[in-house]
Amino acid sequence: MASQPRALPPDPTTIFEALNSYQRSAALKAAIELEVFTGIGEGKADVESLAQRCQAKERGIRILCDYLTIQGFLSKDDHRYSLTPTSAAFLDRRSPKYLGTIARFMDSPAHIARLQSLASIVRDGGSLIHEDGSADEGNAEWIEFARSMAPMMAVPAELVAERVGASAGVPWRVLDIAAGHGLYGIAIARHNPNAEVFAVDWPQVLEVAHENAEKAGVSARHHLLPGSAFEVEFGDGYHLVLLTNFLHHFDRQTNERLLVKVHRALRPDGRAVTLEFVPNADRVSPPTAAAFSLIMLSNTKAGDAYTFAELEAMFRNAGFARSELHPLPPTPQSVVISHKRSE
Amino acid sequence: MASQPRALPPDPTTIFEALNSYQRSAALKAAIELEVFTGIGEGKADVESLAQRCQAKERGIRILCDYLTIQGFLSKDDHRYSLTPTSAAFLDRRSPKYLGTIARFMDSPAHIARLQSLASIVRDGGSLIHEDGSADEGNAEWIEFARSMAPMMAVPAELVAERVGASAGVPWRVLDIAAGHGLYGIAIARHNPNAEVFAVDWPQVLEVAHENAEKAGVSARHHLLPGSAFEVEFGDGYHLVLLTNFLHHFDRQTNERLLVKVHRALRPDGRAVTLEFVPNADRVSPPTAAAFSLIMLSNTKAGDAYTFAELEAMFRNAGFARSELHPLPPTPQSVVISHKRSE
Repeated sequence: MASQPRALPPDPTTIFEALNSYQRSAALKAAIELEVFTGIGEGKADVESLAQRCQAKERGIRILCDYLTIQGFLSKDDHRYSLTPTSAAFLDRRSPKYLGTIARFMDSPAHIARLQSLASIVRDGGSLIHEDGSADEGNAEWIEFARSMAPMMAVPAELVAERVGASAGVPWRVLDIAAGHGLYGIAIARHNPNAEVFAVDWPQVLEVAHENAEKAGVSARHHLLPGSAFEVEFGDGYHLVLLTNFLHHFDRQTNERLLVKVHRALRPDGRAVTLEFVPNADRVSPPTAAAFSLIMLSNTKAGDAYTFAELEAMFRNAGFARSELHPLPPTPQSVVISHKRSE
Repeated sequence: MASQPRALPPDPTTIFEALNSYQRSAALKAAIELEVFTGIGEGKADVESLAQRCQAKERGIRILCDYLTIQGFLSKDDHRYSLTPTSAAFLDRRSPKYLGTIARFMDSPAHIARLQSLASIVRDGGSLIHEDGSADEGNAEWIEFARSMAPMMAVPAELVAERVGASAGVPWRVLDIAAGHGLYGIAIARHNPNAEVFAVDWPQVLEVAHENAEKAGVSARHHLLPGSAFEVEFGDGYHLVLLTNFLHHFDRQTNERLLVKVHRALRPDGRAVTLEFVPNADRVSPPTAAAFSLIMLSNTKAGDAYTFAELEAMFRNAGFARSELHPLPPTPQSVVISHKRSE
């Protein structure tokens, strides 16, 4: 399989731009913090009124907004800025699809700082930060994740609930492993009024999931199993076990050990539902899914964005009969549905 | 003037990718430090031999190289990596065009850290770091700049020497203000064996320029005027005054004060030669030149990427008769030639 995504003639500008890319992250994060997009959405279209709205100096606002225009997040016409379809939908606080909070987690000082020693991380083959993966109990990072990344999960949570046929209304026991914000289990509970969801995560993280279950009106069917997914007693008889954005933190052996436990918790006709960034076998496409490996290199000791063949092998080794891959457009992720027994 | 560089349908992936862009800078910098490109250029094409060459773990090298492939800096074919035309020309240490050193300056810990408080910088309207601009005497940053950014200057220095007609060989006195690495003055001295160059910069920075003049074989015609461009005595009778990558650090009034001094130092038929990132009047195109403003926002109190109209006005206010704009493709910069008298 060959991959030459952009075989351009020699051009140092691409190097210059890549070395400046950290500015792109910083500018978008700063604009979100300053509510630049919300201000423009409210009609503060020129530098002067926008600076006033954002309590910032005009020089700062003008240069930031020009930069955001260059990066495609604003339009500019005769000294007036306007939102693009993307920034109007996702970066204006007044939009129901607002997801500006994700900048807090994705570009946290800890994440930025960690990447500054990437050469050392590559030398060592993994992150120096978390000796046992990045899922340490009480890790404040996972509370921040549960709170700030939730808006990013609304669309994939809906798509997963649809994909597994939740709305058929069959009485289900659903185990939501490393539930975090809880949105995947909650979406199933919303689609299926006969589903009982059991959410596993650290106690403080489960508080966030529980809040979200209350907001969604499903808290009576949303139960908490606090503790490590590797240690807590799951119980059994589950129709579905959700493994959303979890397996990428660990090596294959660790995952297989967990999957044996998942296999045991499922009914004979049960399914494990894995949401992941799943690159093609070439590991360099599609770009967003494949690039996720770098985050796992810098944040974990042995995690990865696993290919479907690798995920399928882990499930097979844990006793599952067969697995199916379903991309979830428009998200960059895929869902893998693994059946305990064949047919 | 309208500018809508990328009016796409709503797509949160573009936000996700922008917030992850800091990884692009970090990955390229790490690969340069680890000599990944040089190793691949030497024929270490698979993960195992490349990991050995770079004294790194296979997991780290595999994930880093996949990421660089996604970003267009490597190609991958059947588990073997190869250089793209751009990385072969500029990122393999063995190439005469190698410019990997620029990562040290562009992505220095100080630059990265500064951008993490961009929201505060926008609020305050400029950098909190350098009270009087970023050109403080003895600033180690400018020694690093002179050493690490020099390879990026080879092409524009040649283009400027050609543009001003240096090879005609007319006996010239050339003043090189804020010479840094000295390459612009040195290129003129190489093209014109009858040119005497006088380089102005802080003493420790001029040591770098002098080394470069010796390497180029022009040190006998390369003279040093140590000190601040705003304070040092230039002398007079200059045919050319070079202002390369300097005016962007300061506000217009400060620049005009300097340009009055430059005007006085020139012969009646003399020219000021300004190399700058010059955006169009819309300030959002062309992208690389326009985006440079953000670096000036975060690194200076009042600097900017000035439009040609703004530069022309500064020169006119300082007494210059007329200015001409000449883009310097393939570089993202332009040269402005300002004539002391009209004709």
